[in-house]
Amino acid sequence: MTAAGLRAPASAVSGAAYTLKELAARFDLNVHGDGNFIIHGVASLAEAGPQQLGFLANPRYRNQLAATRAGAVVLRADDAALCTMPALIARDPYVAFAKIAALFEPKPAATPGVHASAVVEAGAQISASASIGALCVIAADAVIDAGAILGPGCIIGPRCRVGAATRLVARITLVADVVLGQRVLIHPGAVLGADGFGIAFDRDHWIKVPQLGGVRIGDDCEIGANTTIDRGALGDTVLEEDVRLDNQIQIAHNVVIGAHTAMAGCAAVAGSARIGRYCLIGGGAGILGHLELADRITVTARTLVTHSLTTAGEYSSGTPVQENRAWRRNAARYKHLDDLARRLQVLEKEKK
Amino acid sequence: MTAAGLRAPASAVSGAAYTLKELAARFDLNVHGDGNFIIHGVASLAEAGPQQLGFLANPRYRNQLAATRAGAVVLRADDAALCTMPALIARDPYVAFAKIAALFEPKPAATPGVHASAVVEAGAQISASASIGALCVIAADAVIDAGAILGPGCIIGPRCRVGAATRLVARITLVADVVLGQRVLIHPGAVLGADGFGIAFDRDHWIKVPQLGGVRIGDDCEIGANTTIDRGALGDTVLEEDVRLDNQIQIAHNVVIGAHTAMAGCAAVAGSARIGRYCLIGGGAGILGHLELADRITVTARTLVTHSLTTAGEYSSGTPVQENRAWRRNAARYKHLDDLARRLQVLEKEKK
Amino acid sequence: MTAAGLRAPASAVSGAAYTLKELAARFDLNVHGDGNFIIHGVASLAEAGPQQLGFLANPRYRNQLAATRAGAVVLRADDAALCTMPALIARDPYVAFAKIAALFEPKPAATPGVHASAVVEAGAQISASASIGALCVIAADAVIDAGAILGPGCIIGPRCRVGAATRLVARITLVADVVLGQRVLIHPGAVLGADGFGIAFDRDHWIKVPQLGGVRIGDDCEIGANTTIDRGALGDTVLEEDVRLDNQIQIAHNVVIGAHTAMAGCAAVAGSARIGRYCLIGGGAGILGHLELADRITVTARTLVTHSLTTAGEYSSGTPVQENRAWRRNAARYKHLDDLARRLQVLEKEKK
Repeated sequence: MTAAGLRAPASAVSGAAYTLKELAARFDLNVHGDGNFIIHGVASLAEAGPQQLGFLANPRYRNQLAATRAGAVVLRADDAALCTMPALIARDPYVAFAKIAALFEPKPAATPGVHASAVVEAGAQISASASIGALCVIAADAVIDAGAILGPGCIIGPRCRVGAATRLVARITLVADVVLGQRVLIHPGAVLGADGFGIAFDRDHWIKVPQLGGVRIGDDCEIGANTTIDRGALGDTVLEEDVRLDNQIQIAHNVVIGAHTAMAGCAAVAGSARIGRYCLIGGGAGILGHLELADRITVTARTLVTHSLTTAGEYSSGTPVQENRAWRRNAARYKHLDDLARRLQVLEKEKK
Repeated sequence: MTAAGLRAPASAVSGAAYTLKELAARFDLNVHGDGNFIIHGVASLAEAGPQQLGFLANPRYRNQLAATRAGAVVLRADDAALCTMPALIARDPYVAFAKIAALFEPKPAATPGVHASAVVEAGAQISASASIGALCVIAADAVIDAGAILGPGCIIGPRCRVGAATRLVARITLVADVVLGQRVLIHPGAVLGADGFGIAFDRDHWIKVPQLGGVRIGDDCEIGANTTIDRGALGDTVLEEDVRLDNQIQIAHNVVIGAHTAMAGCAAVAGSARIGRYCLIGGGAGILGHLELADRITVTARTLVTHSLTTAGEYSSGTPVQENRAWRRNAARYKHLDDLARRLQVLEKEKK
Repeated sequence: MTAAGLRAPASAVSGAAYTLKELAARFDLNVHGDGNFIIHGVASLAEAGPQQLGFLANPRYRNQLAATRAGAVVLRADDAALCTMPALIARDPYVAFAKIAALFEPKPAATPGVHASAVVEAGAQISASASIGALCVIAADAVIDAGAILGPGCIIGPRCRVGAATRLVARITLVADVVLGQRVLIHPGAVLGADGFGIAFDRDHWIKVPQLGGVRIGDDCEIGANTTIDRGALGDTVLEEDVRLDNQIQIAHNVVIGAHTAMAGCAAVAGSARIGRYCLIGGGAGILGHLELADRITVTARTLVTHSLTTAGEYSSGTPVQENRAWRRNAARYKHLDDLARRLQVLEKEKK
């Protein structure tokens, strides 16, 4: 790896420093040991140095606690006994760590105003406190609200609105009729508001079904890199507030996703499906069109949901990974599983 | 949802209006009731208002007919009896609706000429009636035909040609040696003509196999957002006319897709596979390399096609979604399915 | 296909020509027949003309040898007897062909210097021999090394480094803290260094876990179109040298991929998984988070790896494709496979 070792640790960049006492007060935590201990950054237990705070959330990393060089640690009360260095005690150490880490995150440099290289059509309404990056393109009837940050290369199409304090990191495309709430965060390559996949078969060829709806994204949503969210055919595609989408997710036209639902990378939702609130959709999972998923449904990775799920709980499909030769033998039998079941029934009947 | 309610219905934008009589004459439909009734837009039955046309194509939405506020409806003759408002009678209401909706679709504003911010290399041939959007980049030996529309941020590489009346919505990349037919529509983030994935293992490391072919896209194709279509290794990757690809589809080098085939989101076709005409490939389906699929093959969502399919029909793979604990028990048994089948054979033999 | 036939064969472009003797000396091959025969390009056996070199690597194309119009062929010693034209004999004809084809590949035109339309922040360090294409955006603290080529529309964010002779074809985004080695090749639409998907559930809503790590890409890696590689949460996401990634692959935060591993299109690796050296990951395969794969693991297409794999070998999951009605019957039985196994056990016990 010639590329290794070039970069200073990210947390070293910010220059921030806090005592454990300050952090405890700020985030409602308890101090174990020296509350005046100063931390200058955060890191994993394995990588933390003597000026950094590590964290122990997952019990299976408990054995790293003895070996860590971290100056301080955030952990559960139960684990405090294992801990020889100063610590912060949290009900949920991962949540506490997330909040503390945010203090050390370098904030994107964003000067209010429009970069000289951006192309803004006459008529676009851009708040004076918004920041429009290099080579953005903004349509005449777009609206950019206060404190919004558009990184380089974003395209904001007709009738789109970017809500207050929303950040488009770089090269996001809002095609048309896309309305983003406040504090939304979108990563590069995401495309919102492209035409849904509407085609009708007219005797011997396809005709396009016009896609006339829009996309509405609620407050505090996050949308991953290269994720696509199509505009509705008629009516809108909707993400309610605090929906969290990872990279390369595909959301088809007229899907509705309930508040606080999270989806991992490469998941896909077909047209007009409705997903409830507080759902967890695993990586690469698929949900067929027009289905409904109740609130608090968990779908494990790569599961294909082929019918509506009306009861909260965890759902799965698929087969386990195996050494290839064993798998081949089993897969060959799967092709005759119905026959196998019938033969078993025959034996059972003969028994009686 | 703070973002809700900001946007006027899209169909209100166009200002167009038609009598049912006019629409019937134009699209060869029959009028039921008042032919002078004027419609000003289209919508779903659930959302249509008194000046709008709704449609009933899927019988399972028949019960919405009583409740709809739509001023008029397009439906099948069989359903006309249920209908108290003026109506258009169609053999295929979805097709009729698509054609009518197109009359109300806001057309993209595209002025002929090259935007001042575009970067056009000397030698590029651009029709005077083509429209080149902001911040496009066009290579010296590219050709843009009459009436083509390139939205903002498109990159047209060496030896590429954009056919007449073709529209690249925004931020499409044609890398090299890509030839698009007429009336093609491509959505943002699509990448055509990137190198195919050709690598050869040379003792202890990989060497790259040069990708020297191109991409040819037939007339009237549509290509979704963030879809990728690689150039051929030797010879071209080809979509025949009227192929319809949804978002995030991956088409590898030297694939050939027959005319009028449609593929839903996240499908993937590996190198040198040949897919017939009038095929329907479900969302997330995969087709392995070098396979052949006959005409009129349907592959259901998420199916992995591992051998050639020579007979028209519908094909599937996968297992059904279940509550996770039940699924776990079944998946554990799948690992021993061959053994289970052998044990059944033993019992059957003992029987005799 | 109106688009057909517009383009001259790619290999005709370069104008290069070599005798078989020259090629044999250069790549350590043997000549069969006339070593003074001159080739002007390369092609597949099916498409090669009398001035071109074809190749025979896969035995199933052996029958094409009689019919080919190729002027010369590269093949194994075993196949030379079948060959009536001049030939090159190679231990591995595909590797030999790849090396020869590279001689005929049109090299991207890249003039050293920064295109006038690029936006380079003051402070960026750009080698005088690097080429920065149209409409690139380069952050103040980015570094571009000697001979690097950035095609049009690349965005190089804060604290990123592009190594010597590395090529970003077009529209690549390096978000932040991304360090690329030497001779790396990245295709359009790829996004490296976007935030990993880190969220923590705080009672009734999600909070973001700051993503403070970076991405390190080793020498000679290739990364496909629209592939995403997220920055680490703490610590880096790492590709060692000579890793080859196809299109639309998703690499989550803190993944480590060993040297010489190759992954086909649409594969996905979840957070903190560690993949060994010389692995082959099939198209659309998935690897769950925190798993470890040993060196020389092969995972077949669409397999979901749900536990660590410690022994070199080939691994699979999934079920075979079938005609839909047969599949439906089998899939229905799968839902009761555990029950079926128990019933078999009952019969076996009764037997005794």
